[in-house]
Amino acid sequence: MKIAVLGAGQLGRMLALSGIPLGFRFGFLDPAESPCALAVGEVIQGAYSDPDAMARLCADADVVTYEFENVPLGAAADAARRTSLFPPLPALQHAQDRGEEKTLFDRLGIPVAPYALVDSEADLHKAVSSLGLPAVLKTRRLGYDGKGQRVLRDAADVSAAWAALGTQGLILERFVRFDREISCLGVRGRDGQQRFYPVSTNEHRDGILRLSRPRPADPLQALAERHTALVMEALNYVGVMAFEFFVCGETLLGNEIAPRVHNSGHWTQDGAVCSQFENHLRAITGLPLGPTALRQPCAMINLIGAAPPTASLLSKAPDLRVHLYDKQPQRGRKIGHLNVLAADDEALDAALVRLRAEVEATADG
Amino acid sequence: MKIAVLGAGQLGRMLALSGIPLGFRFGFLDPAESPCALAVGEVIQGAYSDPDAMARLCADADVVTYEFENVPLGAAADAARRTSLFPPLPALQHAQDRGEEKTLFDRLGIPVAPYALVDSEADLHKAVSSLGLPAVLKTRRLGYDGKGQRVLRDAADVSAAWAALGTQGLILERFVRFDREISCLGVRGRDGQQRFYPVSTNEHRDGILRLSRPRPADPLQALAERHTALVMEALNYVGVMAFEFFVCGETLLGNEIAPRVHNSGHWTQDGAVCSQFENHLRAITGLPLGPTALRQPCAMINLIGAAPPTASLLSKAPDLRVHLYDKQPQRGRKIGHLNVLAADDEALDAALVRLRAEVEATADG
Repeated sequence: MKIAVLGAGQLGRMLALSGIPLGFRFGFLDPAESPCALAVGEVIQGAYSDPDAMARLCADADVVTYEFENVPLGAAADAARRTSLFPPLPALQHAQDRGEEKTLFDRLGIPVAPYALVDSEADLHKAVSSLGLPAVLKTRRLGYDGKGQRVLRDAADVSAAWAALGTQGLILERFVRFDREISCLGVRGRDGQQRFYPVSTNEHRDGILRLSRPRPADPLQALAERHTALVMEALNYVGVMAFEFFVCGETLLGNEIAPRVHNSGHWTQDGAVCSQFENHLRAITGLPLGPTALRQPCAMINLIGAAPPTASLLSKAPDLRVHLYDKQPQRGRKIGHLNVLAADDEALDAALVRLRAEVEATADG
Repeated sequence: MKIAVLGAGQLGRMLALSGIPLGFRFGFLDPAESPCALAVGEVIQGAYSDPDAMARLCADADVVTYEFENVPLGAAADAARRTSLFPPLPALQHAQDRGEEKTLFDRLGIPVAPYALVDSEADLHKAVSSLGLPAVLKTRRLGYDGKGQRVLRDAADVSAAWAALGTQGLILERFVRFDREISCLGVRGRDGQQRFYPVSTNEHRDGILRLSRPRPADPLQALAERHTALVMEALNYVGVMAFEFFVCGETLLGNEIAPRVHNSGHWTQDGAVCSQFENHLRAITGLPLGPTALRQPCAMINLIGAAPPTASLLSKAPDLRVHLYDKQPQRGRKIGHLNVLAADDEALDAALVRLRAEVEATADG
């Protein structure tokens, strides 16, 4: 069976690494010259919107999926006409627009931070008046890793933020004081069967995820699963979906969904019997879903910008798995991650202190 | 870093699948047209003894290793002249010849079944007289998976066995009544550091491995490690080595070594934090060795000849990992394996019964 993937970055690479043992072959479409999935499949270099490139990609593919949510909708629709596309188009459409996303959460009764859609400077002033400050102004489309966002702290920030972002549809969200951020990874099969990984607590810095750590009995697990299930069912979802939440006491505020495997689920490669990558492939190919339980205490550290030498990392923690993406180091770029395993939470805490010190001394930011 | 591999079969494929996440790139040399490592690296199609092919393989490789022990010694020596070869040549040399192997075990004080080297029909008759029957006549070189072996039960079998195998150097081994077969996988780093996986008990049928199951506290673990360490040290070994033993009460009789990752260690992909494949790569590239402990009850079932549909297998056991090699089904051919995990030994027993019934109904033999 051949699986075609739109995008040939690290997520595509890790999808293939998990799918090749199942006997799947992989083809990718990506405009980049030497994307990092090149090691594990055939890459067609081309624009997503190029129908000839898409035709070649889909020619012998049994199913098409994508590794990022900013695939042009027209290109995704083109792929869906040629073969099966999972996750389905409506998932992509909602995930691409923070306005549509928030509206969907609202409709499903999932709490969100107060927000207003902003299409003009007048809208913005009106929204600031009604929501109050501080607030976060975000582009509705094409934002990721903190890009396309401005925090408005006082009235003087409003015009500058409009000047920086105002050429496109925006959303203003009231700044939420939250206790922590978590994400819930769900997977839904073609037959509607659903499974959920333990939610992970996520730490960001400069808008980029640094650490994800699942706990086997997070008190918000059941609530996060319910919210995630609502969205997956509403979208008739197939595949892995990540749902990021802000935790405010016992409430979860829906932040955003990613209709794909997600950085906060990389721990599943080594901390679960069946990784998010394999479960995504099982879902989109109609195989039974795999186990999602936490095997042992585990956390993931991102390698941003640069990475310490592998030998040095491996000497710092006995049960460490290193995942590098074969990408050139560059400020702010995710070039790999570490999955740290330990016998118990205390040993994991200690290993994380040692590893984070080394990673942060090397990485930027 | 680029790692060159002699042979591009399933072991090469799984080496690359475990090494790509460490940022390694892989190149292979194999005479076969479409070997199964093609999905995970660049394959040069050529004879091992072709110096031009070897030169191309080694041109930008940092280290060369091999996935089978029948690499022609001249080709391996050629590779060793061009770049670093691990495991080192003497390991290959001893593993290729059952006579040299047994002599080494003898010299190191490792018990073996009584044996005699046989180079003529007269030698054979003399050996039969001194060792008694039943006995096993084996070619000294190029045997695997039970090929090149004849069991001699009575005097009438002697001439037929000589006629079948007598064109090459042979070894006659007294037939040993053993309780079970185990294998010990050791790994030795460039710095001499050693680690050992839990020994697995192995079941063969028709000379082909069917099942390997490690136990966390096998009473023969320490003895098996001592024997394996003796051989690795004698050969100044670097990489993963498998040592197969016959268990006779509390004695281990050394049967054979494989200077490479080994089928009886495939369970380590899912049953250990660091698989035999990753540890082999860590050893030959000078990285610190990884953890070898058993994470949870686990066993491996080989898929021989043909495999049941993946969906059917996955529905039979909750914690199952399927590893397919993308090889055409063919009688007696290893086309994949299953790693079965469970919470405890009883659950593992039950899962193995279900899975083996399905596998044996599909596979040949």
